This record gives sequence, C-alpha cells and structure tokens, in this order.
Amino acid sequence: MIISTKRGTPAAELDRIIHEFEAKGLSVTMIRGTDYNVFGLVGDTTILDEKSILANPYVENVQRVSEPYKKANRLFHEADTIVDVAGVKVGGKEKIVVIGGPCSVEGEEQIVQVARDVKAAGGSMLRGGAYKPRTSPYAFQGLGTEGILDMVKAREATGLPIVSELMSEDRIDEFEQYVDLVQIGARNMQNFQLLKAVGKMKKPVLLKRGLANTIEEWIMSAEYIMAGGNENVIFCERGIRTFEKYTRNTLDLSVIPILKEKTHLPIIIDPSHATGNWRYVESMSLAAIAAGADGLIIEVHETPEKAWSDGAQSLKPDKFRSVIEKGRAIAKVVGRDI
Amino acid sequence: MIISTKRGTPAAELDRIIHEFEAKGLSVTMIRGTDYNVFGLVGDTTILDEKSILANPYVENVQRVSEPYKKANRLFHEADTIVDVAGVKVGGKEKIVVIGGPCSVEGEEQIVQVARDVKAAGGSMLRGGAYKPRTSPYAFQGLGTEGILDMVKAREATGLPIVSELMSEDRIDEFEQYVDLVQIGARNMQNFQLLKAVGKMKKPVLLKRGLANTIEEWIMSAEYIMAGGNENVIFCERGIRTFEKYTRNTLDLSVIPILKEKTHLPIIIDPSHATGNWRYVESMSLAAIAAGADGLIIEVHETPEKAWSDGAQSLKPDKFRSVIEKGRAIAKVVGRDI
Amino acid sequence: MIISTKRGTPAAELDRIIHEFEAKGLSVTMIRGTDYNVFGLVGDTTILDEKSILANPYVENVQRVSEPYKKANRLFHEADTIVDVAGVKVGGKEKIVVIGGPCSVEGEEQIVQVARDVKAAGGSMLRGGAYKPRTSPYAFQGLGTEGILDMVKAREATGLPIVSELMSEDRIDEFEQYVDLVQIGARNMQNFQLLKAVGKMKKPVLLKRGLANTIEEWIMSAEYIMAGGNENVIFCERGIRTFEKYTRNTLDLSVIPILKEKTHLPIIIDPSHATGNWRYVESMSLAAIAAGADGLIIEVHETPEKAWSDGAQSLKPDKFRSVIEKGRAIAKVVGRDI
Amino acid sequence: MIISTKRGTPAAELDRIIHEFEAKGLSVTMIRGTDYNVFGLVGDTTILDEKSILANPYVENVQRVSEPYKKANRLFHEADTIVDVAGVKVGGKEKIVVIGGPCSVEGEEQIVQVARDVKAAGGSMLRGGAYKPRTSPYAFQGLGTEGILDMVKAREATGLPIVSELMSEDRIDEFEQYVDLVQIGARNMQNFQLLKAVGKMKKPVLLKRGLANTIEEWIMSAEYIMAGGNENVIFCERGIRTFEKYTRNTLDLSVIPILKEKTHLPIIIDPSHATGNWRYVESMSLAAIAAGADGLIIEVHETPEKAWSDGAQSLKPDKFRSVIEKGRAIAKVVGRDI
Repeated sequence: MIISTKRGTPAAELDRIIHEFEAKGLSVTMIRGTDYNVFGLVGDTTILDEKSILANPYVENVQRVSEPYKKANRLFHEADTIVDVAGVKVGGKEKIVVIGGPCSVEGEEQIVQVARDVKAAGGSMLRGGAYKPRTSPYAFQGLGTEGILDMVKAREATGLPIVSELMSEDRIDEFEQYVDLVQIGARNMQNFQLLKAVGKMKKPVLLKRGLANTIEEWIMSAEYIMAGGNENVIFCERGIRTFEKYTRNTLDLSVIPILKEKTHLPIIIDPSHATGNWRYVESMSLAAIAAGADGLIIEVHETPEKAWSDGAQSLKPDKFRSVIEKGRAIAKVVGRDI
Repeated sequence: MIISTKRGTPAAELDRIIHEFEAKGLSVTMIRGTDYNVFGLVGDTTILDEKSILANPYVENVQRVSEPYKKANRLFHEADTIVDVAGVKVGGKEKIVVIGGPCSVEGEEQIVQVARDVKAAGGSMLRGGAYKPRTSPYAFQGLGTEGILDMVKAREATGLPIVSELMSEDRIDEFEQYVDLVQIGARNMQNFQLLKAVGKMKKPVLLKRGLANTIEEWIMSAEYIMAGGNENVIFCERGIRTFEKYTRNTLDLSVIPILKEKTHLPIIIDPSHATGNWRYVESMSLAAIAAGADGLIIEVHETPEKAWSDGAQSLKPDKFRSVIEKGRAIAKVVGRDI
Repeated sequence: MIISTKRGTPAAELDRIIHEFEAKGLSVTMIRGTDYNVFGLVGDTTILDEKSILANPYVENVQRVSEPYKKANRLFHEADTIVDVAGVKVGGKEKIVVIGGPCSVEGEEQIVQVARDVKAAGGSMLRGGAYKPRTSPYAFQGLGTEGILDMVKAREATGLPIVSELMSEDRIDEFEQYVDLVQIGARNMQNFQLLKAVGKMKKPVLLKRGLANTIEEWIMSAEYIMAGGNENVIFCERGIRTFEKYTRNTLDLSVIPILKEKTHLPIIIDPSHATGNWRYVESMSLAAIAAGADGLIIEVHETPEKAWSDGAQSLKPDKFRSVIEKGRAIAKVVGRDI
Repeated sequence: MIISTKRGTPAAELDRIIHEFEAKGLSVTMIRGTDYNVFGLVGDTTILDEKSILANPYVENVQRVSEPYKKANRLFHEADTIVDVAGVKVGGKEKIVVIGGPCSVEGEEQIVQVARDVKAAGGSMLRGGAYKPRTSPYAFQGLGTEGILDMVKAREATGLPIVSELMSEDRIDEFEQYVDLVQIGARNMQNFQLLKAVGKMKKPVLLKRGLANTIEEWIMSAEYIMAGGNENVIFCERGIRTFEKYTRNTLDLSVIPILKEKTHLPIIIDPSHATGNWRYVESMSLAAIAAGADGLIIEVHETPEKAWSDGAQSLKPDKFRSVIEKGRAIAKVVGRDI
C-alpha cells in the first residue's frame, strides 16, 4: 500500500504515521518528494482500511498495490477452478455450457416443454425464475415454491440440472434441497447478508454482476461467498448500466479476459438480459464464446409474445438451437466444444 | 400507454392487437402513419407489462404516458406527507431535520458522547451503524445487537430518536423494538424481499437511493413499501455512481425539486457518503437546504482519523455545529427553519 | 411523433395545439385519456424540435416514433453500403479489414517498418497518428505534416492504404491529398464544424464513437457528414466511458448488431483504445469478428515499451499476426474472410 | 510517481528500470514487497507518460502522486484569480455574476428586448448563441455573424457584456472583435486545436465541462488555454451524462468546492442545460450560490414556447428576476452579493 502525505506535513506527524504502521507489523519505507512525501507499506495490508487512513488530514492519497481479494485471486491459486453442477462441469477446458429456459416458470407443462426444447437443442442446464425481482410491486412476482417444484419435474423429465434465483435467506433450505445452481441476481450482488448465507450452502453459486458494480467489487462479492466456505462460484455478466438507450444494458465482454487473468473461477455470459432484445442475442452469444467465456445463459420461450415476463428478449427454441450450432463452430476455433 | 408497430405489419395483426387490449377493458385508438402505426391505450395500464408487449415481433416501441407509481404519486395525493419519527416531524414546512452521528457505532461511550455532541450542536436525530454493508468480507462488519443497544443508551441520554440500517429480514423484530427510523441502504434499494418486509413494519423508513438507480426506480421502491401498508417513507439521496474520480459518488441535488414535483414524500440529503470527503460536506449541505431539502444526514465523529470506518468523510463536532448554524440562515431564506 | 398533455389542459389550448400542427402540414389525431390527452402527429416530423414543443407548459412529454436520421437509415436504403478505401472494400460480405499500426508516427523508418510488419501479418491498411489529441498540453502532440509524409512513404513501400486522424479544418487539403481514410476521433464526434467540412471531402471517413455518446447521436453525426454529400462513412466503436476501472473504457460490442439493423454503413472495432491493455486485445478482436464486425483497427508497435504514446495497448507484430490468423478462422464460421 | 512491478520481475530488469529513470534526472527509491516491488520517482514527472511506462510487460501499475496541471493548480498560485469581463469582475469575493439570455439569438429585436429584461432583473451579462451545436444537421444552426452583430446591438442598448459560443477557429477574429466572453461548449471541451487557438486570444474564456469528462480532464483543458498564454479562464458546470432519465443531465454541484480547492479560477453553474427543465432552474440556482459558485448562466426568453431552440429550459423574465432576488439573499449568507 502506498500513502502520500500533503505538502507541509510536520516531521513529527510523519514519524507518528511510521510508528503507527510499524506497530501493526508492517514494514514502512518513506520516499521524500519535493511537494509530497510517500510511504510504502509492505506486509499484510488487507487489515488496513483506506478510508480510515484518508481521515488523517495530512494524508493526500492512499493506493493499494495488491488486490484486496485472496481466495478468488489467481495469484494464489493458479489452476482454473472447475465447478461441478450436478455432474455438468463448468470452467477450465471443459465444454462450454449453455443454460436455456424462460425468464419465469409459468407452470409445470410450460417448463417441462421448454426443458425438452433446451435439451433437444443441445443445452446443458435449465433456467427458470420462481422468485422474481420486479421493479413494480404490482407486477407478477413469480410462482414461488410451486415454480421450484415445477422445475424439479422438468429436471426429472430431461436430466438437466436446474438454475434458479434465490432472493431471500428464508428460502435457503428449499434451494439447498431442490436447486442445482443457486443464482444471486444483479440487484443482490451486494446483499452481503445473503452472500454470507450462501457461503454456507453446499450448492454452487451463479453470481451475477450488479448493474453498476466494478469488476473488483464483483470479485469481492465472490470472496464473501468463498470466505464462508463455498468455493464453487461462477461469475455471470449480464450488462451494466450506462447512458445508452438502444439496449437495456451495455454488455461488457471485456470481463472475460480480465476475470480469467485476475481469478481462477469460471465466467458465463447472459446476452438476453444485457441487450433486452432477442434480435441481438445470437451475435453477442457468438462473441462471448470467441472471447473465451465458459458458458452462456439464454432466455428461451415457446411463445415469447405470451411470456409472463421479459418476452422481448426470449429466443424461440429453433433460434436457440441455431445459436448453439453456430456457437459450437466458434468454440472449436478457440479450442473448446459445446 | 402508446404502442407503435413496424412498417409492414399486416392489417389482421393490427386487428388482433386491438382486440387483445379491448378484451382487457382498455379503450384503444389507432393512428395510421406513413411508416408506422400507433395505438393509444386508455384505462388502467398498470396491469400491462411493457416487455411482454415488446415481445410481439410487429411491435416497434412501447411508451408509458402515466407514471407507474400510484401511492407515492403526487397526482393522487396533493398534500405533502409529514413523517413523524418519534416526535420529530419531517417534510412539508416542518423544521429541516439534521441527523448526525458516526458511520459505525464503536461502543456505548463513543455513541453516547457523539449523541451529546450532535444534540448540543442542534442536531435532531442520531445516526449510527450497527450492521455495516462492507465491500470486503475481511472488514469490520458492525457491532450488531450490541451496537443497537448502545444507541438506545444514547437515546436515553439525549432524547434524540435513533436511525440505523437494517440489512436483513431476521433483524426486523429488533429494529421494530429499538430503532426509530429504519434505514434501507443503497445496496438494498432493490432487495425487494426486504422492502416487502419493511412494508409491514410500523416504524418509518429512510430509503436510500441505489448507486445506479433512476429516480423512477427509487420511487417504485418506495411504492413497494407503501403497497405493504407502511406509508411513512423518507427518501435519502447519497450520490450516484459516475465516471468522476475526485468524489466517491456524484451527489444529484436535482432530485430535490423532482421528488417534490412527482411525490408527496420528504427528501433528505447525505453529503457525507456522496462526496466521501469531509471538506466538501459543508458546501453540499448548504446547497441541499437552498434547493429545498427536508433534512440532512451527516457523519460526525470525535476523532475521524481513528474511526473504525469512513473516517475520511466525518465532521468533527465543531464543524458539524458550524454547518447547522450556516444552514439555519439559508433555511430562513427559503422559508424554513432548522 | 406522440405528444401528451397534462391533466387539466383547457380545451381551447388543445384546439390551439391541433391547429398549430395542422398549419405545418401534419395530420393530427387526439386520444382522450383519463389523466392525460395524447396527440399523434403524422407527416414529416423531422421539421419539429422536441424541446420547443416541451416549452409549452401544458405539454407533459414528447416522443419520436420514427428515427431522426434519413440518409444513414436502413429503412430507406436496404442494401449494405460498401466503402472503397483506395481499392480496399469495407462492408457487406467483403473481407473483414484489419487496420494495424502505431498510435503515433515516430519517423519514416519506424512507420515503414511497421507497415511491412502489418502487411506481412495479413493486415489490409496502415494506421498512424500525425496529429494527436492529448489530454495534457505538455504531452507529445504528433509530428504533423512530417508524420503524414512518413505515412505516404510507408504506403509507397507496401501498397497499404493509410488512415490518420484529422483534428482541424485547416488540414483538410493535406488529408484530401495524402490520406486514404480520414479518421474523426472520439473527442471530435460532435465537433459539428469539422463534420460539415468533412462532408465536403471526397475521401471516405472513419467516424469514431464519442466517449459518452449514444448510438443515436453517433448515427446523427454520420448523417451530418452524409448530408454534406460524403456518403462513405465507416463507424468505429472504441469503448465508452463507464464507472469500471480495470479497463480504460468499456467496449460495447452490441453496437454491431444494432448498427447493422438501423443503418447500412460498415462498422469496425478498435479493441486497443477500448481496453487500453494489449493483453485483452486478442479476445476482444475475436469477439468482434464473431459478432459480425466489418473490420478491426489495432495498435501495433515493434517495441511497445518505447512507444511515444499508448504503448500499453500496442501489440508486437507477432501477436498481431496471431490475432489475424485466429480471426480468419472465426470469420469463416460467420461467412466472411480476412 | 509510483510504479509497481509484477511478481517475478528479474533483478536485472529492476536495475534497468532504475537506470532509465535516473538517466532522465529523476531520483528513484525502490521498496521491496512480498508480491510486488514499488518504485517512487521524485522530480519533474510531468515529462513522463504513464501509458508508455505501462507498456513494459513487467510493470503492474503506475500512479501519479502530484496533479498533472501546473498553471491552473492552486498549489502554485494561492490567490483566487479574478477574471475581468469588459469591466464585470468574476471570482474571489466579487459579486456573483448572473448571465441571462436566450439559447439562440433570433434577431435584433428579440435579443435587445431580452437584454433589457436581463438588465432590469439585475443580470450582469447577456448570453446568446449565434453558432449552435445541434445534434441534427436538419435543425436550426444559428444566425452566424448576423447573430453576433445583433448581440453587439444589445450590448450598446444595455451596457451588458456579451457571451457567445465559439465553435470554430475560423471565427476567432470575429469573436476577438465583438464578443466579451468566449464560450467553449461542452462538445468542444477536448477539441484541442480550438483550445490552443483560444489560448492565443486576448478575451476571457468560459470553458464548459464536457458531457462525460472528469474534473481532472476539465482542468487540463483549462491548462491548454493557459499554456497558450490566456490565463483568464472561467469554468462552467452544465451537467454530466448519467443513466438518469428525469433530467437531461445530472448537475454536479460538488465541482464547486473541488475546483475551489484544486484551482484558483472562478466557477459558474448552468442549471438550464443541466436540468433541461425550467421548473428545476430556481432550486438549482439557489443551491449553486449556497455551495459557493461565482456565478450562474441561465436561459431567459420572453416566450419560451416559441423559442427556436431549448424553450423547455428557458425562464420568463419575471421568473428570472425572482431567482436573482432569492439568490441575493442566499449570497449574503455565504458572504457574497449579486
């Protein structure tokens, strides 16, 4: 950690600062500049809080040199983590997973049918929302437990592992029992209570990026889950909020090489929520695979115009199959398969 | 609601659309254009979901004309709502409230002392965090129940109502029992489970704006709480996330006239978290009062450089007193008092 | 165009509004709602200014249904435009172009050598900055005319067409004479004087997206150039400004399917400026090709660590060759070649 | 400047880096860490380019400790700069200036009348656009020279200095001759050619902040003008681009205390362009004064609904007068006058 102090900081204060950090077991080197002095701290600086240091009125700036995450950090864990989701492997050089399914579970018949479509098209897992985060209290909030049980039926019918969003600690038992991959939604990426609770689960976690969260914050949220003991975390990029109006969000595909460099965890891409428009899903899916993603999560619906939520971004089964087929050809170019 | 359809939409499809909406009890008018056709829907359009309508491949665009909120909407509730927080009134032409206190409760002695400072300076409520949302799992997470009980001691010593952040449903009983104003933090603004739970509480709610949430989404989160039965919601702006690097967040003071126009609920400003720097707190506090805010929430600490969190943005008690004094003079110009 | 008026607008005012628009040759339909009235205007609404209409205190909202651009609009020009840059064709189903070269021209020897590297690797044009937009007045500002003449030497040596940034109207004659593809930089995307001047040039234009400009504004800037008579415009995405800190900018690849849908002009991608980091250039290049881009523009330097500007994002020639080779395999999957 | 190198950087490379910087006259100190090594450079680091240093593959991170600006930096110029605009003083403890006038000059009669209104209301300068930056090539582009001459007539009639936007170098002689305060618009904040040209003018400059530019970049643009010899620069905040939709832009009032701390130049606020809505102009004007702004620039029009541009954000003269009167009372609280 590097700390710079303001012009005119008294020598006694500089000494005091040095002693304060040395007392915490850190080694301190001071560089005297013309307008500023700079301290370099060596040791375990994760115990320090930048903002508290900045509270010293003589301090101008504080800069971390090393990343604030440990368990998620590739520096300390060089090999790719491969997450096992009820037998489907995600990450490393494993097959690229394609998760398909509706935004909302609308009933057993619907979800079983979509599951068959997803499987027939070559998909590897089934998604479906039973608890839905909706901006309006007057909008459909999901079927709840009934929706989860409908998904279980779809798994029985097809063998596909199931993915669903957990919105609240009080449903953890239900998800531990029935769901194969527990999704934490964008709006809960920094719901730290929920992250801690999920950190104690045995099921792997799909951690969506928050609407306006930096990659570093996102990795720190994975760190919360891992610090609780659950090291099976898969990142999911779903677009960030910008000023652009032609898309619902801006899909940030540069997270793929960055996460691969900074962490050892898998990363999958959600082009449906990112663009909000089914017409842009295929090209963003192919781009994600070319960039090195470990998977895709795509909304699929038999009749999008009748979907109970998010129909505008759902693919019909035929189109979903076509995306997988083109994606497989791209995957082979980058040394993977689907 | 206004719906436009694409060039080349078949007449039969236009008829089908009209019948579909009429079947839902809406009145439909069609305007035939050169490149587009447009439908105007009249009636209770809050039952419709824009995204489902957009899923029809012939639909080009959907635009709401009326706001999606009802209970929070000034159109249906002209008078200012005045929220009573344990006897302190917030909103309308009431005195501007100034809430002071530390980022984190650090112990009984500390919080009682700060409470005395806040009261002596003219503050009207005490803030203090017992459950802290921290980006890092390795950072101090708050004293929990002990911190809440320390705040109760501070209330007993000074008579100031107490404000603290609720992060999880499982602490609702504790907050209902001890806390006077229940804060929902920025990171939980769209934790809809928590909003629903708080909607059933009897205590008033301080709803912070999310880091990257629009004003409309913020009002919709208030609508969630109100729809549950708790109509005592106070908005709190604490800065939004932008590209700027000299401040922690960008304080958006234009929310003050906008919320006054769109809703009947009070709005207070948090210049400490917005700027992240105590040196900018005074000018932003005075600006907020001049713009018509109903209150301020400011971090106060006896020795900011030793604070357990967020010291960089905390004012010392003397400076806090000076902000209130200058603020009072500004308040009088805009027809209020502190 | 759709105009909604406020609750309580007097009938006489509604009549006045109708007459005002009819006097401009537009056909007006009024939809009476419960809380609002809505007007639909049919005809050439590009003559209307939204903001002037909004100035009427009875008007609540104005919404365009049709896009504000004409010449760039695919609705009125279905076939892909193929831009000819000194014999290299860009767009449609033509080969994907790969433009390589240094951020800054540093001298004849350097640029001729890089040009040979680019050509040998399979690149199709040479880029090089002679006039550099630099944030600091104390930074290297480019070699100017000398740099342009050095590029001409590089073209003579290799046959590669040359691309360079035009920053000022007073260099138009020089660019018309020497440069094959005239780049308008991100910071000048809304320098409307420069756009008008370039609209009168005979050379094709590479129009970079502004740091924080919407796709609609970007197309409108192309419309400026086209309205002047120069219809050979190529779009270039180079990342937008967001809150993210691990990349210089956020590369928005969703512009590829959107621009293909909304316009008939080619689109190329600049992964070097977008990410600001050579380590992320390959994956973003492959992603761009998979998504359907018509080309790439990549920084190449023999010794990036000695580059006079932007070395951090430059590829060495070997790496550049490798990107082209992998890109070619991806291109074939999407029905193109490099 | 602080440079950190990656784990595993060879000792020979570390030595080479040290020698390279020492050869440039800088003093270098190295701090050996566990995972990283850090260099501190002391001396004139404005000659170094961060990006070139980052191009070294062993370099992890580069961080400036001192600000990149000199002439605009309060560290080297403690006293407030007071800019004289044809006799009207701006900055320091001088009266707060209020600049009023229409978005566009629409003719002599209009602008002379508005000038009289502005003067009668207590305004201190007249604004009016003769060259207009418009997103659409089909929108009204301003009256040009005729508009400038109309403003000269308005100055003759009232004595008010005149402010107008310069969009192109080729109008510099005209502006030098006729205009008192030369405005550089948001879209040209990084049109470095224009900044250099304006740096050689004798007239003071009003430098608007770009739509998505950081405060540091904005100060660097002032530095461009000052480096050319023209030290009379006034900053003007006009809102930044964010995700919010209820305002045209987000007004960032925290720039006021920040610019006062970092620079010695005056800062004025434009609430009209920031909010895009006349209903929010008064509260944002009062907030700006309370926060310590040196002035306001407000759009005023006799009949906003008939304005040729931007009517929605213009105040009628009566309202403008009311803003000044309330503003004067606020100004007195913060030790200023209007």
